Amino acid sequence: MDNLFSTLQNYFEEMVSIRRYLHANPELSFQEVHTPAYIANYHRELGLEVREGVGERGVVATLRGGKPGKTVALRADFDALAIQELNELPYKSKVDGVMHACGHDGHTATLLVLAKVLSEIREEIAGNVVFIHQHAEEITPGGAKAMIEDGCLDGVDVIFGTHLWAPTPLGDIWVRSGPIMAAADGFEITIQGKGGHGAEPHKSIDAVVVGSQFVTQLQTIVSRRVDPLKSAVVSVGHFEALNPFNVIADQVVLKGTVRTFEDDVRSLIEKEIETLIKSVCDGFHATYEFNYYRGYPPVVNHKKETHYLAEVACQIPEVRNVVECQPLMISEDFAYYLEKVPGTFFITGAKNPEWETAYPHHHARFDFDESAMLIAAKTLGLATLNYLNQGKCLMK
Amino acid sequence: MDNLFSTLQNYFEEMVSIRRYLHANPELSFQEVHTPAYIANYHRELGLEVREGVGERGVVATLRGGKPGKTVALRADFDALAIQELNELPYKSKVDGVMHACGHDGHTATLLVLAKVLSEIREEIAGNVVFIHQHAEEITPGGAKAMIEDGCLDGVDVIFGTHLWAPTPLGDIWVRSGPIMAAADGFEITIQGKGGHGAEPHKSIDAVVVGSQFVTQLQTIVSRRVDPLKSAVVSVGHFEALNPFNVIADQVVLKGTVRTFEDDVRSLIEKEIETLIKSVCDGFHATYEFNYYRGYPPVVNHKKETHYLAEVACQIPEVRNVVECQPLMISEDFAYYLEKVPGTFFITGAKNPEWETAYPHHHARFDFDESAMLIAAKTLGLATLNYLNQGKCLMK
Amino acid sequence: MDNLFSTLQNYFEEMVSIRRYLHANPELSFQEVHTPAYIANYHRELGLEVREGVGERGVVATLRGGKPGKTVALRADFDALAIQELNELPYKSKVDGVMHACGHDGHTATLLVLAKVLSEIREEIAGNVVFIHQHAEEITPGGAKAMIEDGCLDGVDVIFGTHLWAPTPLGDIWVRSGPIMAAADGFEITIQGKGGHGAEPHKSIDAVVVGSQFVTQLQTIVSRRVDPLKSAVVSVGHFEALNPFNVIADQVVLKGTVRTFEDDVRSLIEKEIETLIKSVCDGFHATYEFNYYRGYPPVVNHKKETHYLAEVACQIPEVRNVVECQPLMISEDFAYYLEKVPGTFFITGAKNPEWETAYPHHHARFDFDESAMLIAAKTLGLATLNYLNQGKCLMK
Amino acid sequence: MDNLFSTLQNYFEEMVSIRRYLHANPELSFQEVHTPAYIANYHRELGLEVREGVGERGVVATLRGGKPGKTVALRADFDALAIQELNELPYKSKVDGVMHACGHDGHTATLLVLAKVLSEIREEIAGNVVFIHQHAEEITPGGAKAMIEDGCLDGVDVIFGTHLWAPTPLGDIWVRSGPIMAAADGFEITIQGKGGHGAEPHKSIDAVVVGSQFVTQLQTIVSRRVDPLKSAVVSVGHFEALNPFNVIADQVVLKGTVRTFEDDVRSLIEKEIETLIKSVCDGFHATYEFNYYRGYPPVVNHKKETHYLAEVACQIPEVRNVVECQPLMISEDFAYYLEKVPGTFFITGAKNPEWETAYPHHHARFDFDESAMLIAAKTLGLATLNYLNQGKCLMK
Repeated sequence: MDNLFSTLQNYFEEMVSIRRYLHANPELSFQEVHTPAYIANYHRELGLEVREGVGERGVVATLRGGKPGKTVALRADFDALAIQELNELPYKSKVDGVMHACGHDGHTATLLVLAKVLSEIREEIAGNVVFIHQHAEEITPGGAKAMIEDGCLDGVDVIFGTHLWAPTPLGDIWVRSGPIMAAADGFEITIQGKGGHGAEPHKSIDAVVVGSQFVTQLQTIVSRRVDPLKSAVVSVGHFEALNPFNVIADQVVLKGTVRTFEDDVRSLIEKEIETLIKSVCDGFHATYEFNYYRGYPPVVNHKKETHYLAEVACQIPEVRNVVECQPLMISEDFAYYLEKVPGTFFITGAKNPEWETAYPHHHARFDFDESAMLIAAKTLGLATLNYLNQGKCLMK
Repeated sequence: MDNLFSTLQNYFEEMVSIRRYLHANPELSFQEVHTPAYIANYHRELGLEVREGVGERGVVATLRGGKPGKTVALRADFDALAIQELNELPYKSKVDGVMHACGHDGHTATLLVLAKVLSEIREEIAGNVVFIHQHAEEITPGGAKAMIEDGCLDGVDVIFGTHLWAPTPLGDIWVRSGPIMAAADGFEITIQGKGGHGAEPHKSIDAVVVGSQFVTQLQTIVSRRVDPLKSAVVSVGHFEALNPFNVIADQVVLKGTVRTFEDDVRSLIEKEIETLIKSVCDGFHATYEFNYYRGYPPVVNHKKETHYLAEVACQIPEVRNVVECQPLMISEDFAYYLEKVPGTFFITGAKNPEWETAYPHHHARFDFDESAMLIAAKTLGLATLNYLNQGKCLMK
Repeated sequence: MDNLFSTLQNYFEEMVSIRRYLHANPELSFQEVHTPAYIANYHRELGLEVREGVGERGVVATLRGGKPGKTVALRADFDALAIQELNELPYKSKVDGVMHACGHDGHTATLLVLAKVLSEIREEIAGNVVFIHQHAEEITPGGAKAMIEDGCLDGVDVIFGTHLWAPTPLGDIWVRSGPIMAAADGFEITIQGKGGHGAEPHKSIDAVVVGSQFVTQLQTIVSRRVDPLKSAVVSVGHFEALNPFNVIADQVVLKGTVRTFEDDVRSLIEKEIETLIKSVCDGFHATYEFNYYRGYPPVVNHKKETHYLAEVACQIPEVRNVVECQPLMISEDFAYYLEKVPGTFFITGAKNPEWETAYPHHHARFDFDESAMLIAAKTLGLATLNYLNQGKCLMK
Repeated sequence: MDNLFSTLQNYFEEMVSIRRYLHANPELSFQEVHTPAYIANYHRELGLEVREGVGERGVVATLRGGKPGKTVALRADFDALAIQELNELPYKSKVDGVMHACGHDGHTATLLVLAKVLSEIREEIAGNVVFIHQHAEEITPGGAKAMIEDGCLDGVDVIFGTHLWAPTPLGDIWVRSGPIMAAADGFEITIQGKGGHGAEPHKSIDAVVVGSQFVTQLQTIVSRRVDPLKSAVVSVGHFEALNPFNVIADQVVLKGTVRTFEDDVRSLIEKEIETLIKSVCDGFHATYEFNYYRGYPPVVNHKKETHYLAEVACQIPEVRNVVECQPLMISEDFAYYLEKVPGTFFITGAKNPEWETAYPHHHARFDFDESAMLIAAKTLGLATLNYLNQGKCLMK
């Protein structure tokens, strides 16, 4: 354990330089070519078994320990975002309009160097470690689902993953048993009324009025239809009827999002949105088109593995607080792994102590404290070693 | 009288060719240059007193009769619209994107030829006829107000005007005492909420929800606040919040129109819209900007002059029906003349009997039956002559 | 004519004493016994043909003129209201809780004395006069319908009727061609949700929320669905959900009224209320019962007969103004007569010039200036005589 | 410990007979006379220090152990409800319209017999046990607040309490760190509009429309203003406007409830309800009265003491499941004790295994399985003894 920590410390400089190289060379979701090649090469040089093109663009590297045992999977995503970086840094993105603004560069560097360290102590490891490098986390349908279908979890007993999190202070690890991230769905509704002259409402079906009544009634989904002990959000961000002032709208286009943490709530809301848009349209003799787009499911951490990870985190010297956090309203396709195997997803605080506030993820000035990578690597590394070598006794 | 009718008939061909010339050479409101010059020239050749540039671009021609008497004003507007003509006609608009799609070419031709005929019988006329050729009827603030301020009604005792009306059958004259056309106002509202992530409504002020509640409440202006025996329309045609589906709107822009026939209703509605937008915004901690744009006032016909015109119309051979019509929800700056002097504005049916339906005014395929010009000329001409020579006894 | 006026004047004292006798002895709708007997007796003493029990309680008296001719019907209603009179008058109601608070006593006295005067000049009359004394005007289904079905209009060519109107000054006669009084309908809606604990909305269907959304949407009937040039009112006066504060309502009862002047608008509104309550209930998985109660249809005056009556009214010495009035939002079962035969219903001003304001009809302190009866009698009498003896030439 | 369990078992029959005696002789909140006298007498006979009339009607009995140590408080409430019992039982309520329909009889019997058992081993106890018998839990302001002000918590280090819970199976203990029961508040709103005739909305301020718009907007409190990760309910159960169908409502009375688990959410909702009612009234020129009645605060369990109690519960032989439950939307004035000293409130399952479903608390047929009292006594007893004699090491 001490060995693990000090070796990681020794390679921290390499970790940083890998991260900066990736940061300077970002690739968009479903367009990753050089990044997976770079990752595969790195693992190959460590002597791991490497599978490329998993689920189209993912990389899976397997480290086989010196003794037989269980199999732990660790996952890092590696895609970037369509954002023009505004930071002035030596390692600023070299690709116009593409930026690692969510920390996936850090996730990848963490996992690569952890693989290097574990491969150095391979003989002592009782079991296997599968490094899952996933493409396309940012855009549905995401890379996780395809990688799972392509076998990345075959033989895996448990999976761990983390997100470096810039708004959370360095030294904090956030864990949560049960739902930790939301299902984030979208919907689009087109209300078809009947246009007309602003002075002749009786000859028209005023789609702006229909849309407004719908948005008004939509509030009752959260206020009356969802169990108040469960969380849900329904927001309409887009209301479009761009007619001249004196023309009654023939059509309105609405777009919105739904966030939930349970499948039954999610399905209820999808159904009730349609119940409402149908009924409001009926009431005005209008018609509609309704499309509901399911994003990733909620990330639901397993209880035992979460408690285990929390206890592991307590043993990392740089970790000051292990916090049972509130669920986050964002989504992650790590959800799919946890539908298949036990495991947990946790948050690694990455706010530099000298920053008053951090730029949020997906911001053109986003950055994180690189020391967080070391904390993440130690936590994932210890969780892996303990699990494989003495796991059972540690897992309550 | 028979003389009037037959002379007008004889000049009908000229009337048509003037109309077609104007149709081929339309000019936009407040940009009229050649049209007023053409009109002024025509009147000057008839020997009338001509004043150009009245209220900036209007033309006023005065015919002084052989005997002393009252002064009758007749008004025709001459501006065109920013519409690309889609008719295939020999006299199709030669100006790209500009079209006489409301019949003002016909109004002008009618008045010019009527002036020619009256000037031929000048000696028999007891009084004066003022031909008001008005620019810019289509766009507020319109030309009427400026022409009045520039003296076009000085000395005028009564005014008559008509609109050739394509949806109404040839042979119909529509009259109405009291309001015949509406005040058509506009408003624009910007609701300022506070944007945010779609998953965090409690940190935002959702402008789409505020706007929807406002549109919903706005219905109570007509349903609860206006005297049910009075007419009013409030329509919102424009509702703009073009955010991504998962972003809570910081701002919504609404645009709408208000139609009324009485000043008190008009003022009430202006006031109540602001009462409502203020209160709804208060209820959500949002703010707003509210701008109300007054268009033309309602066209309110004078009772005695309207009855007179109706009786005159009964004597025109081509007129089959003199109808007391419903008010029309459109607006006209003829309203301003009737605020200053007695008079009446009427509708001259212009739908060709062979057409099943006519394209509406302001349509790219708009046209009217040119015989309507002859009916209008006869009606205006007889109204003028009777009024000046024997008017009193005819006017109850 | 002068004879008619002066004879009526001479009998004015009797008219007043009849009215006061009736005022002191009021009878409720559908419970009239003594009043029709009194009326029948009066006519019988004049030597008229009398039919009692017409349509259950009405009285029809027929005066046959000395010469052949048309038949004019005149109608007066004679029922009183369930109101406790608060006036202190010598002729105050002797019946507890029953009061002539709408002037029907005056209508009856007017008609009886007019019958007396006309019967004195019977020989000069070319045609017949039918005096329709109607029971039960105040309560649907009213007496008119049954009396018509029982033949009271048989052979009638034209009908006239008036309402003494306390809010309108003595000397005014209000006429109106087309609708002068509204259709007044009622509706009752029961919304069936699902009750529950106030803390468990997701297990309930909150009928208060459903009812509120319905009332909110109901505003769009007048604001968006009815032609703005037509009048309509939809009001909900009764909203009943009397649960404890912490119990979600299983049921809401709503009651309201609808006022219209055209059959198409009336039918549209009845249909659209159900469209809305159905759709709102669908949107919340609630159910409903909807009952719409049609009251009297609108009173729609015939054009020619209204103009005729207006010209007649101009000839009554005491009439200072003949006004074309706005429609009134109240209803009258005179409507049924006008569905069968031509005629007109007019308002006879009855506000004493010394009163600043009059108590409204149906008020416990209601009263009217009895001189109005004389004006009404002269107007109805002259309309009858002119119509029968020289009618054609007077009717345009 | 084994001694504790077996002695309690031996006295179970007495526990049952005390409970049945209390059940047969219930007293309403703030009217308790015989019950506290009975309790005081029981404790006095055990030789405990007894204080009566605490906070008006409460009883506090103190057992001083043989050795010095900490002080544990245990609380039971003893008031009954204004319900007519419908059970046919030998120990059915003898008081018309009053019933122990919430299990407080069981709470009291549990505590009395536990006191007896502990007093028998007094010498072995290192510290003191304070038995808090509280009046008036059912009705705000409740008895807890007054008893605390009257010193019942003086010197107390920790407090435990439980509720026998009929819907939960015998053998279950429900615990929860943080909020376990809600704040349950009430509000009443009177909207003052301006009444009028149903046909004249423009002369009225329609309170039914105002109330409906308010209820509609009220939905946005939960849907848009409260953090979606926090629970809240706002329900309006009472909407009263009892006018005839054709009268526009001058007034509406609304009554509702608010449930929350955090003080900031509670205060936010109170404030936002008023923000909304004010703004909606402003928008319609109506006025309002708003009264918000705060019930008990949320019951917020302390973390350490809750974990401790959970571990204790695991050691009770009859306990099959120790469950981390969801918060309950009901309220309890145990909340006040936990604002002053550390402690926890837990649920003791009391559904007889042979019942398919239990009648809910406050039902006229409510009953519970009396064995639950034994489980509660063992849990409270062990929690007390362990805490006092070896507490520190058990409490993490």
